[in-house]
Amino acid sequence: MLTKKQIQRFQKLQQKKYRLSEGLFVAEGEKNVQALVQANYSVEALYSSLSQAEWGCETISEGQMKQLTFLKNPSPYFGVFKIPVADQLKHKGLVVALDGISDPGNLGTIIRLCDWFGVPQIWCSLDTVDCYNPKVVQATMGSLGRVSCLYTDLAQTLEQTSLPVYGTFLEGKALGSLDLASEAVVVMGSESHGISDAVSPYVDQQMNIPKYEMSNPIDSLNVGTAAAIVLAAFRS
Amino acid sequence: MLTKKQIQRFQKLQQKKYRLSEGLFVAEGEKNVQALVQANYSVEALYSSLSQAEWGCETISEGQMKQLTFLKNPSPYFGVFKIPVADQLKHKGLVVALDGISDPGNLGTIIRLCDWFGVPQIWCSLDTVDCYNPKVVQATMGSLGRVSCLYTDLAQTLEQTSLPVYGTFLEGKALGSLDLASEAVVVMGSESHGISDAVSPYVDQQMNIPKYEMSNPIDSLNVGTAAAIVLAAFRS
Repeated sequence: MLTKKQIQRFQKLQQKKYRLSEGLFVAEGEKNVQALVQANYSVEALYSSLSQAEWGCETISEGQMKQLTFLKNPSPYFGVFKIPVADQLKHKGLVVALDGISDPGNLGTIIRLCDWFGVPQIWCSLDTVDCYNPKVVQATMGSLGRVSCLYTDLAQTLEQTSLPVYGTFLEGKALGSLDLASEAVVVMGSESHGISDAVSPYVDQQMNIPKYEMSNPIDSLNVGTAAAIVLAAFRS
Repeated sequence: MLTKKQIQRFQKLQQKKYRLSEGLFVAEGEKNVQALVQANYSVEALYSSLSQAEWGCETISEGQMKQLTFLKNPSPYFGVFKIPVADQLKHKGLVVALDGISDPGNLGTIIRLCDWFGVPQIWCSLDTVDCYNPKVVQATMGSLGRVSCLYTDLAQTLEQTSLPVYGTFLEGKALGSLDLASEAVVVMGSESHGISDAVSPYVDQQMNIPKYEMSNPIDSLNVGTAAAIVLAAFRS
């Protein structure tokens, strides 16, 4: 039975400090909950407002779901999962590194892209938004079950890696003109400041997505769309 | 002077029916307002909470700006512009066509991508979200000053065009395996249903962005990131 105390407890998981102290996070929506269950995330609690729900969900009323949900329009599924122990950094294959990404929607988009393009690990700088933020989880549409985010001192990690490191810079070489290694780290910078001064010394190859007309005053692409173009190029 | 009546009038511009009846839309933020002023959009009113504002803005208090703004965190600039007379459809160069895009953030992202990749016209199906929706305008970050959205019966327009028509389909050919024409229409389908049955007969070439592992259950990319990858391929 879902008690008022439990509702209050799960509500607090919107905040990072409670996610950390409880070791729990929330995923909503059928696709998200399904992907995390299938990825063997450890389940704390699963609720559904459907009378015949899947994955052994406890059935609750729509009114209770409205109290639980973090969404404007509640979905029929609300799952509480244990935050898994972080993977070890794997210095092989294609890796994405994020330097100070602050927008939850952008991180969610990039996790989904990594899933599509077969990138199992994302190395996140310590100031990148928490991947268990409910808005991130929502935007991944289940990809968080297949892609891991590892929070690390990014400059130090890039200093130590044996993989070639690519990064996007306004003054970089055109993406299409570069030989792209099949095993590499691809660094994407923050929405407002790009790649930080601490990280940029460890970028071996500066690359750029050319705009069509140099005279156009538009000065940047959204980091999610830039990541899409870069990952498609690495996988083409 | 900004009166209470004016505030009420501009507030209503959040709704499409009032934008249509007044022929006005709102843009906020320095970049957005600047780009529209520079693109010679006709100005109805410009307000700024800065004492030394640009473009002849009327200075208002921060309290008044809070009453005006559509944003959670108001910017120092609030502009009201006249909706321009729609351009004529131009059947040349690279054109993006959108079939039922409903999310304002996605349309904003695609307008910005079109700006980056030199696509001056977007043909929007009549059920695509209004490009003067404040969330769209915000997401374009000024690109609406350089890219036009034309709302049209998309199936009819594609039937009549002499340009080759490409579209994204799950069962399409891999993007990298196709000869991409430099003058073409690229159709992107809606977030939930893809390209509609009414439009698909007019697509000459079905294309697809290959995922890395066919066994991965992820079934689609966000339409904004898909558009990014497709446009980069057409311009590479």
